[in-house]
Amino acid sequence: MSQPPPLPPVSVLGLGMMGGALAAALLRAGHPVTVWNRSAAKTGPLVAQGATPAGTVTDAVAASPLVIVCFTTNDDVTEALAGVDLTGRTLVNLTNGTPAQARDLAARAGKQGAAYIDGGIMAVPQMIATPAAYILYSGDERAYETHRPTLAALGGTRWTGTDPGRAALHDLSLLTGMYGMVIGVAQAFALIRTENVTATEFAEPLHAWVSAMLSGLIPEMATAVDSGQHLTDVSSLGINQAAFRNFLTTYDDQGVSPELFVPFQKLLDRSVEEGHAADGLSRLADLLKK
Amino acid sequence: MSQPPPLPPVSVLGLGMMGGALAAALLRAGHPVTVWNRSAAKTGPLVAQGATPAGTVTDAVAASPLVIVCFTTNDDVTEALAGVDLTGRTLVNLTNGTPAQARDLAARAGKQGAAYIDGGIMAVPQMIATPAAYILYSGDERAYETHRPTLAALGGTRWTGTDPGRAALHDLSLLTGMYGMVIGVAQAFALIRTENVTATEFAEPLHAWVSAMLSGLIPEMATAVDSGQHLTDVSSLGINQAAFRNFLTTYDDQGVSPELFVPFQKLLDRSVEEGHAADGLSRLADLLKK
Repeated sequence: MSQPPPLPPVSVLGLGMMGGALAAALLRAGHPVTVWNRSAAKTGPLVAQGATPAGTVTDAVAASPLVIVCFTTNDDVTEALAGVDLTGRTLVNLTNGTPAQARDLAARAGKQGAAYIDGGIMAVPQMIATPAAYILYSGDERAYETHRPTLAALGGTRWTGTDPGRAALHDLSLLTGMYGMVIGVAQAFALIRTENVTATEFAEPLHAWVSAMLSGLIPEMATAVDSGQHLTDVSSLGINQAAFRNFLTTYDDQGVSPELFVPFQKLLDRSVEEGHAADGLSRLADLLKK
Repeated sequence: MSQPPPLPPVSVLGLGMMGGALAAALLRAGHPVTVWNRSAAKTGPLVAQGATPAGTVTDAVAASPLVIVCFTTNDDVTEALAGVDLTGRTLVNLTNGTPAQARDLAARAGKQGAAYIDGGIMAVPQMIATPAAYILYSGDERAYETHRPTLAALGGTRWTGTDPGRAALHDLSLLTGMYGMVIGVAQAFALIRTENVTATEFAEPLHAWVSAMLSGLIPEMATAVDSGQHLTDVSSLGINQAAFRNFLTTYDDQGVSPELFVPFQKLLDRSVEEGHAADGLSRLADLLKK
């Protein structure tokens, strides 16, 4: 019987919660994995799972054609890779950062001889390698196609374009949607808890309502934003502007800070002042462009 | 063959988009409906559908034991009903307002001889009487039980308690969750559109991501809020505080106003300053209580 061909080796730099989860997933998939972390103590659990520890970044980079980096910030990436020969390597940077940082790192990596791919992980560490996890990629498309089978061990792979900043932009845009939802849910729980209602009994109606509104609003808003046709006969900015005053009043009445929603009222006010009272909420996306 | 018993008569005060939809739904269900509006012109379409116009609020109130009110503001309600004899009537006030306003109107209605029910409509006018629409009620429970079969013609009925302000509090809490989602979605579209990505192509991934996060976050946050146990091993305030700086930087870099999210960063900063770095996002609901 013939053995399956060995899987390509991978080096993982940075073994925080996320980096550790990435390295573990690659080990479970059968890749030889070399690991490096600034504080060597974190390599222990991964070495126990079969990883090879590298003493220096240079050693780690030399060990594999594919180098996955996951630090706390992109400043850490720049610092760790400064002066390291990356010739012939593909650098996949999964550190959280901005599009501008990704473009800067792509240029640096190019000068050091590497192909650069930036990635945005749409998962918490616990979700890595599960069907719910996916990673957005952008940058060097040829290198991406070469290493995609390996990257698939971490979760779904989604290509967003050759601009290295594109994955970060997608990532930050998706998470922005989520953070808005967090603002709403935190404020809603704070408000309902001011009376004798538990968050748990309120959770199901809240989920059903926000979820239904989300399903309706996103496609409607997308169409309006792309077409520039914001007029609505359902829920105009004028109606929302007037209605939202009751919200700020109620937050105050009930002893809940209105701080997260004051700028929303100001934006609604501005939308009406600027003549958009008959438009739908989609107009707000336009008004946010400076 | 015997006729079915006639349905009870209902009076509807206020025929804006929502009041008109309510009156039309009652007519379609077979109720005798008397209508009144400040500007009489709006009664026309409903009279064409079979409604009886009333010349004064007093006449409208005299016509039916159940009086549904839906004005623009609760000040309009107070004004319209001032000095009107409401003896033996049940007033169902579906005007948007605050819990405090509902409590005030309940007291006034009681003095004028009426049972008071406050309601929060969880629907836009187009949804009235469809399975997706429901109305939250609170106040006089006996009157509610009496008139519930009639109210069911408008959409689902959900009782929230005998405090007349409770329905408004539920209503505003649910809509607060939705407004947070609007903040997130508007900002996400504004951000992704700064590059060559259409809102339409971004809509599906955005919906999938926010929807998945919503399903996970709400029950998790509810449990934490009720128990006061906010420690997390998934997504701590410390991690979010550090990560969110990239968001504000990117908004600026890409020419999108950070105005809607600046207070969120401040709240994350405060959460860490006050020693909650290891807690989850659920802690924010507590920090919003003044």
